[in-house]
Amino acid sequence: MMLGYMCEAIEIIEGCWEFAYLIPEVRSNLVYAKMGAKEPKDVLAIDGRITVVNEMPHASGRPRFGASSHMARLIITLHEHDGSIRAGINIACFPKLISHLEDAAGLSDVAIVKIDRSTEPSKTKKATEGSMSWKAREAIRLAGGKVPWIFYDTGDMGKEPIATIVGENSVQVADWVRRIAQGWVGLHR
Amino acid sequence: MMLGYMCEAIEIIEGCWEFAYLIPEVRSNLVYAKMGAKEPKDVLAIDGRITVVNEMPHASGRPRFGASSHMARLIITLHEHDGSIRAGINIACFPKLISHLEDAAGLSDVAIVKIDRSTEPSKTKKATEGSMSWKAREAIRLAGGKVPWIFYDTGDMGKEPIATIVGENSVQVADWVRRIAQGWVGLHR
Amino acid sequence: MMLGYMCEAIEIIEGCWEFAYLIPEVRSNLVYAKMGAKEPKDVLAIDGRITVVNEMPHASGRPRFGASSHMARLIITLHEHDGSIRAGINIACFPKLISHLEDAAGLSDVAIVKIDRSTEPSKTKKATEGSMSWKAREAIRLAGGKVPWIFYDTGDMGKEPIATIVGENSVQVADWVRRIAQGWVGLHR
Amino acid sequence: MMLGYMCEAIEIIEGCWEFAYLIPEVRSNLVYAKMGAKEPKDVLAIDGRITVVNEMPHASGRPRFGASSHMARLIITLHEHDGSIRAGINIACFPKLISHLEDAAGLSDVAIVKIDRSTEPSKTKKATEGSMSWKAREAIRLAGGKVPWIFYDTGDMGKEPIATIVGENSVQVADWVRRIAQGWVGLHR
Repeated sequence: MMLGYMCEAIEIIEGCWEFAYLIPEVRSNLVYAKMGAKEPKDVLAIDGRITVVNEMPHASGRPRFGASSHMARLIITLHEHDGSIRAGINIACFPKLISHLEDAAGLSDVAIVKIDRSTEPSKTKKATEGSMSWKAREAIRLAGGKVPWIFYDTGDMGKEPIATIVGENSVQVADWVRRIAQGWVGLHR
Repeated sequence: MMLGYMCEAIEIIEGCWEFAYLIPEVRSNLVYAKMGAKEPKDVLAIDGRITVVNEMPHASGRPRFGASSHMARLIITLHEHDGSIRAGINIACFPKLISHLEDAAGLSDVAIVKIDRSTEPSKTKKATEGSMSWKAREAIRLAGGKVPWIFYDTGDMGKEPIATIVGENSVQVADWVRRIAQGWVGLHR
Repeated sequence: MMLGYMCEAIEIIEGCWEFAYLIPEVRSNLVYAKMGAKEPKDVLAIDGRITVVNEMPHASGRPRFGASSHMARLIITLHEHDGSIRAGINIACFPKLISHLEDAAGLSDVAIVKIDRSTEPSKTKKATEGSMSWKAREAIRLAGGKVPWIFYDTGDMGKEPIATIVGENSVQVADWVRRIAQGWVGLHR
Repeated sequence: MMLGYMCEAIEIIEGCWEFAYLIPEVRSNLVYAKMGAKEPKDVLAIDGRITVVNEMPHASGRPRFGASSHMARLIITLHEHDGSIRAGINIACFPKLISHLEDAAGLSDVAIVKIDRSTEPSKTKKATEGSMSWKAREAIRLAGGKVPWIFYDTGDMGKEPIATIVGENSVQVADWVRRIAQGWVGLHR
């Protein structure tokens, strides 16, 4: 029932107006990988990503296996390292939000790491596929060999800064990001 | 009948599968400004931008005045300089596409310029609003005081490279970008 | 710019929550015929009809030539008789609404007629196409040879009672039906 | 995970072009009741019903508790009689289809009954709510006290003929109606 978990997760996100403030320019996607996922076709994602319509988060299309490339490759590499990690979402990463994410990680007692994309080797930079795998491996390295549940970067030439939140399934991730969004809007607006 | 022109333009874009290859990570928006537009609320844009669903371009929401901030500010500055320019669309800008855009500009006998975002003053960089106006003014300056119908940049820290195509109304812009997309896909895939 | 007129008309209808109360079980469609329309493919209509989502009227799909069969055939027959009539919409027809429609016709000084579907010859009843043409011809006959701007029937075996409102273009029809819906809800709820 | 079962069921129906031929004028709805459902708010249904867009079945809105009135009341009455029955869908009922439905019932070894709406007491006819309960009770009575998995009527004054297919959950019903639609289109078109 992965599709059911995705529908429930989309309901949570589309019903949370605060999440609209966390959607980056490149738009968010929510991904949910099959056990043992090896390729984007093994990963459920939202076709067309999550955008903002009428000031509310809006899943552009249906959940579909293979609908994501970037986020799918990221979750596949994380899942290969820790089989319990199967879902993730990317959000904006502006300076004020970072300390809020650090607080959220602290409250949940999970690791959060900052990735410096300027240290990425030029070899993986050339291929987006490689770039996402590098980012996942770098997050694990910085967290001392475990998958951190939140990681973020501050961008690079042509690359928007992005934070990523991961978890065991799409509902858990959606529920957590909803609480993060509500907390952030409560404090800063 | 600006809304009618937007609907026709959306029909053109949504019917052109080749355009999906030109949509940048930040998604495209099509904007169409009222005569004398001064603020984003004077500019018709697509709520939620244009994304890709089922491998086809897809307008996420309806055309609505005030639905764009970035592209709206860009077209407002261009329109203040040349009242005939009222519509524009942003697309991806990867290296191979640039020479194709130069050919398209040559065929239509219109100006095309390259903007170097690293020359942007830090003052305007801080505010996205200022940044879009700077980009518009810089395009005009580089084109010798006239609005160039195509301009592009190669990105900056945290900023994806973007090309912009402008014209007199949304249908003209949509029709032109359709031909550019079809030409590019015909040559390169 | 027929498509533009349809988009404007859809905006009017989707923005009018009161219209949801006038949508019949078979759902409404709005049709707009080309000058000289002879076949459904000459008539613009809403793909999937107008339904109710989140308690608001909602055009299921895009306006498309050929998207309607029933309402298209009705407007074609009316248009053949009076070239100025090119648009129409079908709504519910419950007893209380009838006197409201009669008032609306009186205020606009246009004809309204009641069609008795039990008088329809069995020959046309068998084919829906014929049935719609019969209904149009019967409306004209009952109005003394002119196209009445409102006509309704009280249903038949297996046929829901329906009222139809026609006019010169889709915006005029949408605007009129909006005022009728607002008036009716104002009085009766 | 009722929402998950509804999403899976919608995927099945939207992916089956043959089902478009079985959608009645009043449109189909798929309902799925909670255990012990007593009111429409206990029944998950598709907001805006299932219509046809681009010649494919299309769920107008999201699955939502309380989104149906008619079909919800029908399933509630059936579920009160047999707690295992929780889902149902309404489809068209034209003469040729009836024998196909009888074959389908025979193959699955389930009961099918024909309801004569002309025998409905005028008291329940007046209130749609009562009418749906009457129809459910009549189906059970005609099937000898058990809930028949298919039942149909041939319409009445102002009422389109409708067939109803029920089952234990929304996926089972969707899957069965998909096979019925494919069989019917295979034979008759």
